[in-house]
Amino acid sequence: MAGPKGSRAERAQLAMMLEVTAFPKPGNVDRCHDYASTRLEHFLASAILARKALERAEKGPGGLGPLIRGAVRATSSHRGGNTHFGAFLLLVPLVAGGDIPAARDLIRSTTVEDAVAFYQAFALTRVRMLDHDPLDVNNPEAIRILRERGLTLRDVMAHSAPNDLVAREWVEGFPLTRRAADLLHAHGCGRESIVAVFLELLSTVPDTFIAKKHGMVIAEETMAKAAEVRAGTRDLEEFDRECIGRGINPGSLADVIVAGIFVALGEGWQWEC
Amino acid sequence: MAGPKGSRAERAQLAMMLEVTAFPKPGNVDRCHDYASTRLEHFLASAILARKALERAEKGPGGLGPLIRGAVRATSSHRGGNTHFGAFLLLVPLVAGGDIPAARDLIRSTTVEDAVAFYQAFALTRVRMLDHDPLDVNNPEAIRILRERGLTLRDVMAHSAPNDLVAREWVEGFPLTRRAADLLHAHGCGRESIVAVFLELLSTVPDTFIAKKHGMVIAEETMAKAAEVRAGTRDLEEFDRECIGRGINPGSLADVIVAGIFVALGEGWQWEC
Repeated sequence: MAGPKGSRAERAQLAMMLEVTAFPKPGNVDRCHDYASTRLEHFLASAILARKALERAEKGPGGLGPLIRGAVRATSSHRGGNTHFGAFLLLVPLVAGGDIPAARDLIRSTTVEDAVAFYQAFALTRVRMLDHDPLDVNNPEAIRILRERGLTLRDVMAHSAPNDLVAREWVEGFPLTRRAADLLHAHGCGRESIVAVFLELLSTVPDTFIAKKHGMVIAEETMAKAAEVRAGTRDLEEFDRECIGRGINPGSLADVIVAGIFVALGEGWQWEC
Repeated sequence: MAGPKGSRAERAQLAMMLEVTAFPKPGNVDRCHDYASTRLEHFLASAILARKALERAEKGPGGLGPLIRGAVRATSSHRGGNTHFGAFLLLVPLVAGGDIPAARDLIRSTTVEDAVAFYQAFALTRVRMLDHDPLDVNNPEAIRILRERGLTLRDVMAHSAPNDLVAREWVEGFPLTRRAADLLHAHGCGRESIVAVFLELLSTVPDTFIAKKHGMVIAEETMAKAAEVRAGTRDLEEFDRECIGRGINPGSLADVIVAGIFVALGEGWQWEC
């Protein structure tokens, strides 16, 4: 790599690229699978177009909310829909802070204006939220409520954490991101390790993106099937086909993997063997 | 896209990404095929890591030689070998100038120092040159000879043009790049058009990268087989497998396609449909 680790923004872009090109990843867009409206190129274009926003996060200063909004805005102009919303939620504090402890500190000091900017970022994309939630972005009153109640971006994430594992990473200090990075180190260099880590998380953590879209029963069923793949009693590629066919895509775990690759690269993990 | 066309540097990065992910492209690394030591990730990492060098070219001023050396240096640190040397030769004047006529003007005013920088860029990679050529980069005397004879970078390209179609683009004013861009417009939006244009060029232009590696007979045989694919008398995927198996990769035409995508994007061609 250019320099031992490159800039943080570059590392974040490489992490986005490495996650999406790793394969086979059950249910998600990967090197061998597209969805009709969201293709590999959309993810890779998003990784390229995110550069300036990630550099702004790296150079600071800037609130996490506006920085996330900037990343979403820079990458929401293609027609592939939401590609990296959750990934930016994790990457922006990590890029701004440099590592997990620093990202935690930044999260603790988020403001109401960060929350407002985050809701504005939401409006640029079409991320699925829970229904009947006064803080749902589809509620036009949400920003007024944020200001009235003095809710910071961390508060908003705490509100979402029970049902959203990306939000949970914010509130709990990146435990799954840390685990993904540790697993990458344990599995060693290269893209094969990314697939192994993905399967390991998929078999042990219900993906909340699946749960919101299909319900918790399907999320847990997916987890059980991933465990069977790891145990050798279910075929990986068949499982992948089934997930793709049913639109079961573990998008939240993919976000965590992007963040985990970013952290691991910063700690010396090698993407090429 | 962010803005109608984005920055030129971004457009160049998108062109690099779109070329390599288009498939199936007989013989070249694509979404479905790697070579053992050069994988899709290497090309995509190179596209990401080229950003600063491409931005320097866009912002100017800077001689084409040092700018090319910068792009090669920024992207030669991965272990995938030469991924974009030829592409940078075409992209750097196009990014610096903005379009083909402006790139031609920049090429006409290159200097001996541009030629020296270009040879230094060569030393960073392992691009195949003709043997027994006093201007071969493997000749340690080459830079002394450049200075003695007062050869500019355009002169060096003119020297290589008979055997190198990328050099020929420099000397002749980007005729194949122009043709690739026109064909993209004619074929319409999306990655399928990139494959169609690749096949059309492959069936009508002997690839000099193949010729240097395997001889002109194989380059012309490849051209004839590509024509059969277009005529429907040869299977595309079988042809791809044969090329990959024999290490027949039309790398110079891939470089031209990258440049053609860059030009076409600047003229409004849509990479997504």
